[in-house]
Amino acid sequence: MELLEKRIQKDGIVKAGNVLKVDHFLNHQMDIALFNEMGKEFKRLFADKPINKILTVEASGIGIACIVAQYFQVPVVFAKKTQSINLDGDVYSTKIESFTHKRVYDVIVSKKYLGPEDHILIVDDFLANGCAVNGLIELIENASATVEGIGIAIEKGQQQGGRILREKGYHVESLAIIESMDDITGKICFRR
Amino acid sequence: MELLEKRIQKDGIVKAGNVLKVDHFLNHQMDIALFNEMGKEFKRLFADKPINKILTVEASGIGIACIVAQYFQVPVVFAKKTQSINLDGDVYSTKIESFTHKRVYDVIVSKKYLGPEDHILIVDDFLANGCAVNGLIELIENASATVEGIGIAIEKGQQQGGRILREKGYHVESLAIIESMDDITGKICFRR
Repeated sequence: MELLEKRIQKDGIVKAGNVLKVDHFLNHQMDIALFNEMGKEFKRLFADKPINKILTVEASGIGIACIVAQYFQVPVVFAKKTQSINLDGDVYSTKIESFTHKRVYDVIVSKKYLGPEDHILIVDDFLANGCAVNGLIELIENASATVEGIGIAIEKGQQQGGRILREKGYHVESLAIIESMDDITGKICFRR
Repeated sequence: MELLEKRIQKDGIVKAGNVLKVDHFLNHQMDIALFNEMGKEFKRLFADKPINKILTVEASGIGIACIVAQYFQVPVVFAKKTQSINLDGDVYSTKIESFTHKRVYDVIVSKKYLGPEDHILIVDDFLANGCAVNGLIELIENASATVEGIGIAIEKGQQQGGRILREKGYHVESLAIIESMDDITGKICFRR
């Protein structure tokens, strides 16, 4: 998606350790007009899928998921990172390792909001090694729901998450796929 | 806001310990159509304010804030609950005590996204004792930005957060204010 690639080139900052900072527009400050364009594009890419719910994981996936959901006219469920006293004990749970935070989170979804009748589009801001998406897939499969597709804003193509998911047969659409980036020159190359 | 009050009556569950569970539509599963109606109402209530940014705090405020932002045509910034290696050290920070999670979080906003030129609408899902909103106000004031208003989905009127903020002169609008609720009968009464 050209608009997103241009925005990454303009405002993204490459840091040492394969880190791409896009907190200017994606995951700290959020450009809602850009999210709307991303929503239109995901709707085009998953137009043929019988999606009735979007699943994401807190926190930085939530904003994108909510704007995208408007184009599918479906609710959003976000997986929560820790057990809350406001959630019943009746939950699906898994563990997700965060590349950014270098730690493992317990992640839960209430059984009330994920079931065999659900056809899910997973939405997240980043796909790198695939830990978050694989955790969400595990929650969906535990609920006997169906993964209809995986919509990602930015995929780090140098890492293996996207390739492995596609090899397993999942329909993955990433609006920008980074082929390489250099924290010395700041250069970012996208996959064509 | 009648639509929200009716939804709370229909799907909200009162639990012991002054807990109102609205995870069916507000803060776990999210009804985006309802959020859009809330966005229209906040725009009506804050129509005269020169708002150029919405500030919320992760995680459950983010979805509402993003949908509401569309009616103001402004970006959203969400305060983050822990220091991330993806954020520069140059941040405003404070501590927020969570009523729900019974713990204290460090909360940060990058100095890049909050400054003297900003006129902020704070948006959050709940207002109870006011800890989260007061933390966000502290971040805004540290940045010499202006608090134009505080837009809340559900205020627990039995707790003091809203009263104290209004007494301090802040323009607080809560779309539903709970006067009382009973976890035995399940009855919820709203302030008129």
